[in-house]
Amino acid sequence: MKLYSFWRSLASFRVRIALNLKGIAYEQVAVDVDRQQQRDETYAALNPQMALPALVLDDGTVLTQSLAILDYLDEACTGAALLPGDAKGRARVRALAAMIACDAHPLTTPRVQRYLTEVLHVDAPARTAWLRHWATEMLVAVEAQLAGHAATGRFCHGDAPTTADICLAGHVVFALNQGIDLAATPTVQRVFEAGMALPAFAAAHPLAQPDAPQALRRKPVVT
Amino acid sequence: MKLYSFWRSLASFRVRIALNLKGIAYEQVAVDVDRQQQRDETYAALNPQMALPALVLDDGTVLTQSLAILDYLDEACTGAALLPGDAKGRARVRALAAMIACDAHPLTTPRVQRYLTEVLHVDAPARTAWLRHWATEMLVAVEAQLAGHAATGRFCHGDAPTTADICLAGHVVFALNQGIDLAATPTVQRVFEAGMALPAFAAAHPLAQPDAPQALRRKPVVT
Repeated sequence: MKLYSFWRSLASFRVRIALNLKGIAYEQVAVDVDRQQQRDETYAALNPQMALPALVLDDGTVLTQSLAILDYLDEACTGAALLPGDAKGRARVRALAAMIACDAHPLTTPRVQRYLTEVLHVDAPARTAWLRHWATEMLVAVEAQLAGHAATGRFCHGDAPTTADICLAGHVVFALNQGIDLAATPTVQRVFEAGMALPAFAAAHPLAQPDAPQALRRKPVVT
Repeated sequence: MKLYSFWRSLASFRVRIALNLKGIAYEQVAVDVDRQQQRDETYAALNPQMALPALVLDDGTVLTQSLAILDYLDEACTGAALLPGDAKGRARVRALAAMIACDAHPLTTPRVQRYLTEVLHVDAPARTAWLRHWATEMLVAVEAQLAGHAATGRFCHGDAPTTADICLAGHVVFALNQGIDLAATPTVQRVFEAGMALPAFAAAHPLAQPDAPQALRRKPVVT
């Protein structure tokens, strides 16, 4: 499989974690969002939405949208399950994932930041406040869903990582980059740390990717 | 089942269509977002995210997040399938749904409009331009995924409505409300009209709901 991704893209981060948890080998093709390479002809031909990531299967099928890719990998591939075995459990995990992937992440993407800057002339401090506002709102909402819920375990749902933990990892990495303190959301912090302690998560971290700027790069994680 | 919803909420619209397609009887409980009733204690106790909709099953289980609810209904209930039978087809349908539900809809929600107005002091014309920008961007992106694709049929994927059509319905209703012309996205228009011609879609329309303002209300659709 070939994953078209960008080191900083949180949706790409999700798919990398899932591929690692499933034990699937993949080649990563860097698409530099800072240089708007996702709008280049080659990539636009693969994914007309010009959004990352895209996963190209060995038969050439192109899959897009991280949540859809995660569900596909879980249905079609062996390896660790990304969703619980029962329908209500799956609904809880998918709801946690959607909270982050639908209601928080899109508000902080480069295209939205660009619109705020270029069209609405929002200055840098107000833009930072925007990012921190939505990141914090979602940390609090996820904490409220996790804290004290009987199904919350070592991870968001039980004692194995699921799609919810995959989405949470990216959200918390983003929040930490924005300088947000996790002290007010202790369950989120605990569950996030349990995830990042796993090699599948650590190896997928934005700063562990070959296209991350050299100065920021972490040492590759041995899996 | 009990659906906590608001007539204008597009995420509620999705769940109403799915329940109708499945032939599931449900009671609708109106939560007035204009009066911020989703922040009232009663609703916040049901859904700590304080977002609509929430579906309460007969055993008291509370499901949230429309995409997660759609998947649950498809897995747990009989009636028309909301997803195709093959994993790659499901991935395509889920990607189309996620494009709309993740990458477009959240940018136009009341909480975001409120932030633009109250914190960033964006005036009404610029706010309208914001709504139209994201609505149009997504219409174009969905058109590019649908037009000429072998799997596109009478509906987004084949000749029966799926989760993708359910999400598309809300997006197009929103775009039309913003005065956006569908002429540039003819496949979207055709597929949308095929959906809205079905009683399950028509009866779920925001303006067909009992909590819609009387002056805007459509006559109830006979299903």
